[in-house]
Order: sequence, then C-alpha cells, then structure tokens
Amino acid sequence: MSENNKIGKYKYTVEPFHVDFTGHLTMGILGNTMLNCACSHSTDRGFGITTINKENYTWVISRLAVEIDEMPYKYETFELETWVENVYRLFTDRNFAIINKDGVRIGYARSVWAMINVSTRKPVNLLQLHDGEIANYVCDAPCPIAKPSRITLADDGKIVSSMTAKYSDIDVNNHVNSIRYIEHVLDLFPVELYRTKHLRRFEIAYVAESCYGDRLDFILSEDKSDMLHKVYNIEIKKNGQEIVCRSKAVFQ
Amino acid sequence: MSENNKIGKYKYTVEPFHVDFTGHLTMGILGNTMLNCACSHSTDRGFGITTINKENYTWVISRLAVEIDEMPYKYETFELETWVENVYRLFTDRNFAIINKDGVRIGYARSVWAMINVSTRKPVNLLQLHDGEIANYVCDAPCPIAKPSRITLADDGKIVSSMTAKYSDIDVNNHVNSIRYIEHVLDLFPVELYRTKHLRRFEIAYVAESCYGDRLDFILSEDKSDMLHKVYNIEIKKNGQEIVCRSKAVFQ
Repeated sequence: MSENNKIGKYKYTVEPFHVDFTGHLTMGILGNTMLNCACSHSTDRGFGITTINKENYTWVISRLAVEIDEMPYKYETFELETWVENVYRLFTDRNFAIINKDGVRIGYARSVWAMINVSTRKPVNLLQLHDGEIANYVCDAPCPIAKPSRITLADDGKIVSSMTAKYSDIDVNNHVNSIRYIEHVLDLFPVELYRTKHLRRFEIAYVAESCYGDRLDFILSEDKSDMLHKVYNIEIKKNGQEIVCRSKAVFQ
Repeated sequence: MSENNKIGKYKYTVEPFHVDFTGHLTMGILGNTMLNCACSHSTDRGFGITTINKENYTWVISRLAVEIDEMPYKYETFELETWVENVYRLFTDRNFAIINKDGVRIGYARSVWAMINVSTRKPVNLLQLHDGEIANYVCDAPCPIAKPSRITLADDGKIVSSMTAKYSDIDVNNHVNSIRYIEHVLDLFPVELYRTKHLRRFEIAYVAESCYGDRLDFILSEDKSDMLHKVYNIEIKKNGQEIVCRSKAVFQ
C-alpha cells in the first residue's frame, strides 16, 4: 500500500465560537477535531467506529499529547494529517500533524488507543482483529515531539477545584467525555497565564471512567524543575478515591 | 430579489462528541450551528461579521427561541435554513428551519439581533446602514413557532447553582459566550429529566454581558400553570446583582 493512502488529510476552518479570548482555536476543540479526524481516517479504511460498532467494539482513547507553536486563528483554515504509527496487541499509536493556512507544520500530536468490547469493557487483541489488517496501515511519517510522558504529581499537589459531572459533561456511554476533561483542566489556570504565555504542550492520560454525578477533584502541582517553562501536573480523582485522568500543561 | 436567494440553506453532520447521553445533538451545539449558519448567510450577502468588523461593528444576539420535535442523531446529516424576517431600527429578526436527514422539518427557531459599534458598545441604526440594504433580504417564509416570550420568575425562584466564569467560558470579546450560557442552564437539570422527557422548547434572552471572574448565580423557578409540560424559568445574575440572562426550558 502506498504511504499516501496510509496518511489521511482533512481540512477544517476555525469557527468563531471555537476560539478563546485571544482569538485562537482552543485545545479542547483541537482535541475534538483530532478525534473526528481519527474517526474519518479509520472509517475510510474499514476499521472506524461505525464499522466495528456492528461487531460490538468501540475505540477508546488512552493518551493524547499535543505540541503546537501557535494555534490557528479565528476564521483561518487548517489541516490535520493523521496516520497509524504502531499497532500492538492491546494498543495502537496514532499521530497527527497540524498544518496552518500557509501549509506550515505548526504542531504535532501523539495518541494511544485501545479497542474494547462494548458489553464486557474488555480490550480486543488488535493483532488478531480482521486478520490484523490494521497493521497494513502502519506508516513511519515523522512526528518530532516527545511521546506521552509518565505524569507524576509531587507531594505538594493540592485540590484546586471540585465539580460534579453534569448533563453536558457526559457522552452516549454515560461517561464524562474526553474533551470535557481537557476543558476542565484548562479552566484551572487564570486567564493571565493565557494572556502572557502560550500553551506549548498538553498531555492527558485517561486512566478510568467517571459518570454523571461523580464528584471530580482536580489536584494541581507545579513542576519547578523546568526553568524555561511553567509546567503543571494535574490529577483528576473521582469521589475522593480513584484517579480518572492525569494531565500535564506546559506554558512557554 | 428572488425569495430563493433570501433563504440560506446549509448542511451539517452530527459529530460524535456533539451529542448528549441519548445520542442526540445537544441544544448548545445546535445553537452554535445556528450562529455559524447566520454568520455564513449574512457574510454571503455582504452584511456578515467579517465585512462589518472592518467598519468596527459587530452583530450581537439578543434573543433565541428554539422548538424541536426530535434532535438529529449521532452521525446523521441535517440542514438549517435561515432568513431575515424583519428589520427594525435597532433589531433584526432572523428565523431558522431545522430539516432532518429525510427532508422533514423537525423544528424552527427565532432569533433577535442587534448590531453594535465595537468601541462604544452602542447600537447601530440598521435602517440607515449601507442605505438600509439589509431590508432587501427580508422574507416571509413560514416559522410556525411562538415568538420569544417575556420570561418572568415567580417569587419562589431559588439559587440552584453558582459558578465563576472561567477561561473556557469567555470569547474573544472577553465576555462569557452565548453558547456557554445555554450549556450552563441545561446543566441545572438532572439527567433523569432528559431520560424521561424531551426538551421541546428552549429560550434565552441575553440581557447584559458577564466577564471572566464574574460569579454567576442560576435562579430557577418551575411554572406549574402548564399541566402538559414541565416548564422552568431561569435567571442568571452576576455578582449577586445584575441580571445577565433570562431563559425558559419546556420539557414534554
């Protein structure tokens, strides 16, 4: 198969209500757009949600790391390229390139996905599924950003915000949706930070699911070892106990 | 000018992360889509935001009322038609029809807009702007739903939720964005209500602007005079004082 067919390329426009107060696309909407883009890419190649749902399987995102020079601006067009970098037994790595209106690669993202059985919530062996056909799409296009890191919180982590998962947080599986977590994490920071610095890198690891009515505590710790950036590690815990997400935000 | 050119028609697809737990498009996303649609319609006809921004003007939405039989479902396509019903000195009425994948009109919406000068925040006389050219687009296509009502709260209204406006609430003008208010209002209701009933009509009147850091109190009162529906009136107040929005949600 040609490398060209392995890489999907999709064009978008930054909608006026999808920007933050600086006029730039938000990380939450970029994340949403990447999930849609992943969905289109896999559907076009026969392993998308709508195909595998018939077999009672669904894709779940496990990790996402995005690094970007400058977010596209209101009304600008941008493109996403996406491809499968690796397929393992239980996970697959999917990468993205973010291309601005002038054709310049302004950012990249790495994501890790599993496929689960909707009824049992157990993972599916990707190497066996459809005779391992997904492996035919593996492609080694460049993705010059670090892999998702192991996020650990220092002992000084404090609960800085708490909320109860509401109607608009939950998706069709009754779980808080992946994009809402990103928005809630980014809401932990004051606008002064966004005014003076740029969210250079954002990471999130989805560890467990939370549901409607769950209390979510956001625990924040600043990593002061990086002298050049403001680096924050975040844990989201549900009902005072189980960790739901770990996240990292790097402002430059 | 032909009536055909007066009505704009735009096609959309329900994205997987734009649905609620029932799998149907959310009212917030429908609202956002209608704003985009209004933007495209007015831009195509020379009185869109990007044109008038050059003159230091912007459109602001004052009222929105939506009535719908059943929201489009995940991955379905739907269409919006939009047209200008009236132009007055300070306001213009813009209507919408919502058409499902089978071409059936499943809902309608009415909206009221003003144009303001970005610097002075003062309204612009629409009948004088560009020699009143906007009036050429007035069209009397049918919109068989009630006009936005005058929403009043009974004395038993109570604060049911409070929040502080955060980073992801605010738009490029530093104000809480119109769609976020809709989402916050709909988050006042338990999922049980959405599971057993259908949000038949939703109204919101934007009375004043609120900014980052403002405390927003949500005051709710049930209108028990309607025996057939669950009707809720909502006021959003900022910093314990000024009313920011009034809203009404009718569940069937």
